[in-house]
Amino acid sequence: MFRLRIVPVEKGFFELFELASSNMLEAAKLLEHLASDYEEPERKVGRITEREHQGDTITHEIIAKLNSTFVTPFDREDIHRLTSAIDDVVDNIEAAADIMLICRVEQPTEDVRKFAEIIVKCAEQIHEAIPLLRHRQKMKGILTSCIEINRLENQADRINRAALIALFASPSDPLDVVRWRDIYGQLENAVDRCEDVADALQAMVMKHA
Amino acid sequence: MFRLRIVPVEKGFFELFELASSNMLEAAKLLEHLASDYEEPERKVGRITEREHQGDTITHEIIAKLNSTFVTPFDREDIHRLTSAIDDVVDNIEAAADIMLICRVEQPTEDVRKFAEIIVKCAEQIHEAIPLLRHRQKMKGILTSCIEINRLENQADRINRAALIALFASPSDPLDVVRWRDIYGQLENAVDRCEDVADALQAMVMKHA
Amino acid sequence: MFRLRIVPVEKGFFELFELASSNMLEAAKLLEHLASDYEEPERKVGRITEREHQGDTITHEIIAKLNSTFVTPFDREDIHRLTSAIDDVVDNIEAAADIMLICRVEQPTEDVRKFAEIIVKCAEQIHEAIPLLRHRQKMKGILTSCIEINRLENQADRINRAALIALFASPSDPLDVVRWRDIYGQLENAVDRCEDVADALQAMVMKHA
Repeated sequence: MFRLRIVPVEKGFFELFELASSNMLEAAKLLEHLASDYEEPERKVGRITEREHQGDTITHEIIAKLNSTFVTPFDREDIHRLTSAIDDVVDNIEAAADIMLICRVEQPTEDVRKFAEIIVKCAEQIHEAIPLLRHRQKMKGILTSCIEINRLENQADRINRAALIALFASPSDPLDVVRWRDIYGQLENAVDRCEDVADALQAMVMKHA
Repeated sequence: MFRLRIVPVEKGFFELFELASSNMLEAAKLLEHLASDYEEPERKVGRITEREHQGDTITHEIIAKLNSTFVTPFDREDIHRLTSAIDDVVDNIEAAADIMLICRVEQPTEDVRKFAEIIVKCAEQIHEAIPLLRHRQKMKGILTSCIEINRLENQADRINRAALIALFASPSDPLDVVRWRDIYGQLENAVDRCEDVADALQAMVMKHA
Repeated sequence: MFRLRIVPVEKGFFELFELASSNMLEAAKLLEHLASDYEEPERKVGRITEREHQGDTITHEIIAKLNSTFVTPFDREDIHRLTSAIDDVVDNIEAAADIMLICRVEQPTEDVRKFAEIIVKCAEQIHEAIPLLRHRQKMKGILTSCIEINRLENQADRINRAALIALFASPSDPLDVVRWRDIYGQLENAVDRCEDVADALQAMVMKHA
């Protein structure tokens, strides 16, 4: 029994999950930086796009490993779900940053900054939770992060709602409404995808802890 | 064999499903009430938000039960799918109601009322179908409700299409187009989620009837 | 062993998949025709709607076969996923065509034509890949189509991004922004759903090749 466990069947997966979450946290921080200091936005969005490409590479590596590995540390569909969810967070962070370029905003609003902060906090929670997957006896600690991410998602909902109310309350330019609804919508998507990561982690904990 | 079935392993699930569908039907009726009599909308939307919170509580209870129960009356993923779909219907009803507040509509249109009626009819079908899950020999009756929900969804599609055509045909104010597209879109989402419930129910019937 | 394989347990599924992909390719070509020659759009969109209904019929047939067949040539959930994804492509092609009628566009833009071309190319790749499912030793050829579809999806992303940038750069009429964002968004959805088909095919190859 003990000798069998010496074979490091699952080792690579944990490292790849940690690489993915570290890449996601980096993307979130770049978004926060963009939102708080909107100088040279093209260059800054370009750096987030690099994170997105890096995320794709890590995702493909995990999927390839999943297909070539006979014994996996978690159910295949759970590994797939976690990996896709982290990938989606990065994609949505990139889309949220890029839509500001596309819509030619002059300055992110205070609400964009609040959203970016929440996304960083969610990414930090995920990045702290992921290494706990390695240790069955520590897995329950992941649930604390999941609860916190749910709280942050509710907070993002309230920010979005207040921002939209303000937008419709004094609509100077209809195009501004279109523009900011898009931007807030993308930012909210990024937070929602963080909640998907939390759901995937929670399912893994439930089955294994 | 017979003695084993006396153990009520699954009892709680059926009751929780029925609580969830009853809560969803209540939310649908509150939406219809809001659409047909748009007085004190904040208070009325507030009551729908209460249904949404109640729905969350029921959903969490089902998921917790799923994780602590060894033998479940249906496949775990089917229970999960049904529960999430009902939860999503309530979330979308709440979002549809709330967006009218956010966009500051003065009066819901006739199309909003038609949508709300369809959502109530879908919720009634689901609420009638759910108790049939308890009786393997009655499960096929669920399929009749599923067919009716599909018909209602097609009807909602046609309402949405006609409403959008009218909106683009005489666009007095571009903001109105933005506003009503959002509202109709959310209402259509609520109907689409009812169809997801029907699909989940259908999958359960197919496996067990 | 050999005699067992003579029993055509799975025969119908492959034929139905091929019918579905052929119907999808036809819908894509009708969209391209609409985009390149916008005469009598109602009639042309009507023909795409016929493809959508035909797609529904084929989808229902596959699901019914899935529920009445004991031994299926692939995992049930993979068959379900592939079938839904192809159905979604056709639905999205129809929605993209119909939104042009709804929004009352006078002429599709050059970007609509580029999108339609990409959708035809994706549909051709899928239509070529599907028959390879019949032969375990040829299945790896499907991966080549999947890679090409991924490339086409990236190309569609770039077209969408450039089109939106142009739209926000010189917004004469806010309604035009609303209108074309919708249309490009639906066209992008159609391409994204082609990528879902590719993902479903890839998962089937990974398990069986």
